[in-house]
Amino acid sequence: MLQLDPILDFRLQTGTKGVPPSGDGIALRDVGAQGWRLLDGSIPLPAAVLRASALQQNLTAFQTYIDQAGVKLAPHGKTSMCPQLFDRQLRAGAWGMTVATYAQACTALRYGVTNLMIANELVGETEIRALAQVTDARILSLVDSVAGVERLENILAGTARPFEVLVELGIDGGRTGARGAETALAIARRVAASPVLSLAGVEGYEGLIVTGDAKADAVRVDAFLNDLLHVFATGRDEGLFAGAPILSAGGSAYFDLVARGLKTEGVTTILRSGCYLTHDTGFYKRLLDHVGERAVLGPAPALKPALEVWAQVVSRPEPGLILINAGRRDLSDDSGLPKVETWTRPGKGAAPQAVSDWQFYRMNDQHGYVRVPEAAQVAVGDYVSLSISHPCTTFDRWPLLLEVDDDYRVIGALRTFF
Amino acid sequence: MLQLDPILDFRLQTGTKGVPPSGDGIALRDVGAQGWRLLDGSIPLPAAVLRASALQQNLTAFQTYIDQAGVKLAPHGKTSMCPQLFDRQLRAGAWGMTVATYAQACTALRYGVTNLMIANELVGETEIRALAQVTDARILSLVDSVAGVERLENILAGTARPFEVLVELGIDGGRTGARGAETALAIARRVAASPVLSLAGVEGYEGLIVTGDAKADAVRVDAFLNDLLHVFATGRDEGLFAGAPILSAGGSAYFDLVARGLKTEGVTTILRSGCYLTHDTGFYKRLLDHVGERAVLGPAPALKPALEVWAQVVSRPEPGLILINAGRRDLSDDSGLPKVETWTRPGKGAAPQAVSDWQFYRMNDQHGYVRVPEAAQVAVGDYVSLSISHPCTTFDRWPLLLEVDDDYRVIGALRTFF
Repeated sequence: MLQLDPILDFRLQTGTKGVPPSGDGIALRDVGAQGWRLLDGSIPLPAAVLRASALQQNLTAFQTYIDQAGVKLAPHGKTSMCPQLFDRQLRAGAWGMTVATYAQACTALRYGVTNLMIANELVGETEIRALAQVTDARILSLVDSVAGVERLENILAGTARPFEVLVELGIDGGRTGARGAETALAIARRVAASPVLSLAGVEGYEGLIVTGDAKADAVRVDAFLNDLLHVFATGRDEGLFAGAPILSAGGSAYFDLVARGLKTEGVTTILRSGCYLTHDTGFYKRLLDHVGERAVLGPAPALKPALEVWAQVVSRPEPGLILINAGRRDLSDDSGLPKVETWTRPGKGAAPQAVSDWQFYRMNDQHGYVRVPEAAQVAVGDYVSLSISHPCTTFDRWPLLLEVDDDYRVIGALRTFF
Repeated sequence: MLQLDPILDFRLQTGTKGVPPSGDGIALRDVGAQGWRLLDGSIPLPAAVLRASALQQNLTAFQTYIDQAGVKLAPHGKTSMCPQLFDRQLRAGAWGMTVATYAQACTALRYGVTNLMIANELVGETEIRALAQVTDARILSLVDSVAGVERLENILAGTARPFEVLVELGIDGGRTGARGAETALAIARRVAASPVLSLAGVEGYEGLIVTGDAKADAVRVDAFLNDLLHVFATGRDEGLFAGAPILSAGGSAYFDLVARGLKTEGVTTILRSGCYLTHDTGFYKRLLDHVGERAVLGPAPALKPALEVWAQVVSRPEPGLILINAGRRDLSDDSGLPKVETWTRPGKGAAPQAVSDWQFYRMNDQHGYVRVPEAAQVAVGDYVSLSISHPCTTFDRWPLLLEVDDDYRVIGALRTFF
């Protein structure tokens, strides 16, 4: 579906994390034929791996859920910035892709995305002019102020093809987005009257409503979705939309509520979920548990954590402390620290053993600190696997991820573009 | 000094942050000839810039300080992972380079570093075998346990050339490194007796002793340096070292104390300072202030912050709040949040104005939140510059940085390898 040859032809280079000495100069498309096995010591650690079976399950389970809900998915590509994964998301049935920035849009367009939502207001003159010249893709972006609309108009003055934007409704005290329905509607009217812009729909982002009180959060999310619907319905009544209108919200944290709340007759409702693809064992796991408890559209999709970081023990300087060779540059901590899931000694017959009482408690740039039971038999050179919380800020620490089967044989490699 | 042609021949691609539409396909060596100016809107934001004048001042001031102290510098390359900067550090007089990991070592070796310290114990079998085959560079790495020594010996059994290691002394409750002088000496003796290893010296890392009480910290650092010297002197008395011995410590936070404490007749004392090159306005600024107050080797070197991230205002949804298009993926917060330094409206005649009362208080992945005075005239599309705290975790968010002169003309580009 996408044009991935330039990525598959890319030649690996030692110096990139996860590339073994024998991988220097190997084309990415040939990685799966090398016979590398993570557990036998073929791969320098730290390395980030994606479990193929979990990826496939997540792709299918989430798209099925979306299809059954009668809405569309434009997965947020900023999570992985991996066109090879974009391709799988589109093949699984996604309507298009979402990105956050101009640079990310360039990557999506380079590899052939044809329906692209940029979930921000474009403000850079050079970038806006460049995107306005794209003819082989539909590009949607946001506006959240009359000043922003006027800025776009000034930059685009004289262009023939209308530039499609959605008006963004925000939340008081929140991030971007017009504050209040009346402000949003004033912007929508301004866009509708513009000679160079066209109003494609209404957009909001509910994903920052996470206080830890799931029930109260759900009430707030529903209220916000109602506000979005109100702006949308008023805009439709006033005839502000050009063509078939779009209603869009985030859908990573509350995809059930968004799908239920925004599904509307004659409207393309687009969710921009990003983290379903790899899921996690922290922040998004908790949110998925709440989706299951609410069961507003039936059971939650069965998502499995697909992204693991493997590291090697470099020191056990005290009986209850090991240091591993993965730190801030390999793992995120913005939504919770990683968890040590398994431990093994690399070599023939290595079999990861689950550990539950090891505590990853601190990171420096290149080291992780793990408290272990003094009786644990872990030694320098052993491997540990870590699960993560918040895929986005783990992906962006890895220019290359290895795809593995359930026995940790390396069956491919994936490039990211951050 | 290094072989940078493969980097200079690299062709930029839109999709990489900081590359404008007109930069697609331009060779990196030609960036300075493009006439790009940050302030006129040529460059998509966010972009990371290095100020050439500050870089040059830091290179000279720090190397002069090191030379006058009578010690050597192997700058920690993990800070920037930028061979173009390694080259400048070596040309300025550095003895060699330091890295933290096997992957980083591969990058340093690929571009021609010939004196390389890997400031960790090597534990990966594949990696150790590969590095043992390198003949055109001197590679030093660490050991901090007899188990680690035996692991190296097993992997290297039968190799002809001795593999050089330094024994690492640690700190109780700290990171890696043998706990206590006696443990370190036992490891040193084991190395000296090894058929495949040779003991090159003694090493420690004092940089984690930062509690906020600068005077107490300095006392602890001096005590640790004394312990290092004790291990070293005993090892020398016992004839454990092969050839001219090396004494090494960190030297980013306490380079004055390390240079004073470890300078020893007949010994190569190596500091591994990393952050002097770009300096910062947060964590390392505070530590440099303490160096100046202590004045143990005269005044502190005059370091200037060289690394800035520029971002654009994407929304002002409330009078006292702006959102900028730089977030966690562009800026670090592990050692303090970035600070907004200047504000300007891009275009001809744009002149950054210093701001002091704008508060950068939160980041999401792709957004920064800044509180501004309600009377501030800042508008959507305006530019802000941010200074940073902790260069390492800002560099690693930028595959490409732009080098600018004092008028923010783009005079070159620098690639990093994370």
